Parts: sequence; C-alpha cells; structure tokens
Amino acid sequence: MDYSELLTKRRSVRDYEDKEVPLDILIQIINESCLAPSSSNRQPWRFIVVTNREVIKRLSDESKRNLLHDLERNPDFMSSNYEALLRNQHFNVFYNAPCLVFIVGPKKLLSIEVDCALAASYFMFSACAKGFATCWIDLGRFINDRELLDLIGLPERDRIVAPVIIGYPKDIPGVPCRMGPEVLKIVS
Amino acid sequence: MDYSELLTKRRSVRDYEDKEVPLDILIQIINESCLAPSSSNRQPWRFIVVTNREVIKRLSDESKRNLLHDLERNPDFMSSNYEALLRNQHFNVFYNAPCLVFIVGPKKLLSIEVDCALAASYFMFSACAKGFATCWIDLGRFINDRELLDLIGLPERDRIVAPVIIGYPKDIPGVPCRMGPEVLKIVS
Repeated sequence: MDYSELLTKRRSVRDYEDKEVPLDILIQIINESCLAPSSSNRQPWRFIVVTNREVIKRLSDESKRNLLHDLERNPDFMSSNYEALLRNQHFNVFYNAPCLVFIVGPKKLLSIEVDCALAASYFMFSACAKGFATCWIDLGRFINDRELLDLIGLPERDRIVAPVIIGYPKDIPGVPCRMGPEVLKIVS
Repeated sequence: MDYSELLTKRRSVRDYEDKEVPLDILIQIINESCLAPSSSNRQPWRFIVVTNREVIKRLSDESKRNLLHDLERNPDFMSSNYEALLRNQHFNVFYNAPCLVFIVGPKKLLSIEVDCALAASYFMFSACAKGFATCWIDLGRFINDRELLDLIGLPERDRIVAPVIIGYPKDIPGVPCRMGPEVLKIVS
C-alpha cells in the first residue's frame, strides 16, 4: 500500500468483526515493528499477544479498577469524562477486539516510552497495510495484579507501554479534525 | 512510495548533502506528522525548525555540555562509550545536518513522550517518502540555557521530546542487525 494512502487510512478503530487475526500474519506485523528505530539501537521492545477473550476481559476489569482508584486519589490524573465510562460494567476498554498486543520493555530504561511508541507506530502502519485495524488503548495499561501479570507473562523487570488492539475493522471512522500544525518558530 | 519499501528504506542517516530542505516540503512533512494518533486525540505536539547552522552548533555544544555534566554526576546515566565523543570539540551531535526539527510539547502532559514519538515516527516516514533522510538525535535534547531556549522559541511550559535532523542523504546505510522479535507469551 502506498504510504500516502496509509497515512489517511490508518485510523484508530474501536469496532471489530468477530474474526480471529491469523497468528502468522500477526507475527509478520510484529517482525515489521522491530524495524523501528530505537535509542542506541537497543531494540528493547518485547511483545505479549492475548487472544483469549476471558483474559482480555479480566485485563480490562483490572485496568478500569486501578484507573478509578487513581482517579479517586488524584482527580487531575485524567479527564473526569472517563469516569462514567470506567464505572460502566459493560464497557470493555479493549472494545471486544479479537486480539490484544502489549508492547513492553524494561522499567529501568529511560528511553522505553519512546522506543515502544516507535514500535507501536510501525505496528499500526503494518497492520493497516495488511488490511487490519488497530487502536492504542492507553486505558488498558494499568495492570497491577501480579497473578494476572504472571498469566500474561510480563516479567518483573518490564512494564507495559503500549496496549494495542488489532482485528478486522467493522467500520473505519473518518479522519477526526486535525489542528493545523503549530510551528512555534523557524530559526533561519 | 509503497510502505513495504519505506519500511526498509527509512534509515537513521548521519551524513547529509550540503543542500537546504525546501521550507514548503518541510511544512508538508510537518503537516503529515500531525496525522499521528495521540492520547485522547489531544495532538499536543508543536514544532520548532532550525536551519541556522550557527544556532545548530550552539545547540549541539549546549547539549554536549549538559550531558557531560549529568554523566559526571551519574555515571549510569548513559553508556560511557559516549563520553569521548561528547568531549570531542569537533563532534556536532546534529551531524552538520542542514535542518533540525524539535518536536516539543507540554511538560505537564503525562502522554507527551509517546505522543511526540508517534509524530516523530510519522515525520521520519513522510520525509523518507519524499526522498529525504532523518535521524532522531536523543543526544540533542539537553538544552537548559534559557537564552538559547528563548532564541529557538521554546516556551517555559514545553519541553523537547524529539530532536530530528533532516536533509538529503549522502549515503544511506544498510539495515543494522535486527534481533528476532521477542514474543514473551501468546495467551490464547
């Protein structure tokens, strides 16, 4: 797919067909994500794939619980618009997508957020180029329960940076309004 | 350009032709960077363009000075391999590129690192698709001197996340060795 097409076709999708993502294609997408640049070429990203719907639901519930707890302690933590959504028992932060991929990496590495974000960007483009849709679900990374972390295989040394859902899109939304680019200064 | 071609053609380039990047094309690339997804669709990124070579040199010197200072206080801050390079008076962290773009955003925003990294990823792809090369220069973001920050127009509320150099490549290096993707677990 041409990059200029990909640029507008890559949308954050929250509505998926009830159809599995073939594992071999998912591994290809993960492989392509590893072509992202990283600080000092460390390639510190690691991947966890979850397709078990019951586990995805447990991860959603755990993340919602921790977010509400954080929100109670610090109302500035996130927009209060999210509170009603998080309190809705039927709301799954992963939008019932058939597959969830966590991009994770070492807690101690200073560059881990940007390294994993770059890999996530490649992941989302590669998925789109192959006919899939994705959405980075920031609400889905607040997993503290050690039993659940063990179940998904996250080592103590690592943390979740990017939870990304992937599947066949039911409906691709239009491009949301973009602000013009804010160029603060051109120093010539 | 086809995305599969872009995937391997996008390299981190540190050797540039002595030729300006036309401003209209640079603005197109910045526009396309703003199509990146962002947390809650905040689009919090802002851009600073520096093409003045003397200013780029001052920014390089300031960043090297601060990095060496941090390294003296905390030897674990970064690999000691960088120390000799930073002490080399002739080393410009921006590799004498004709143009430097800072992607910046609000210090207070929790998602600012990943938001700007996503915009940087789009920037690097768009630049490559238009025949330019780029390199994210993490060594170039340690600018503390208020006078210099005022000169480049960085407001007090913002911080530099991604310094990216851009220009016509002299030589495009091959793809450095990639480790196989580390999939920690597949929970099916």
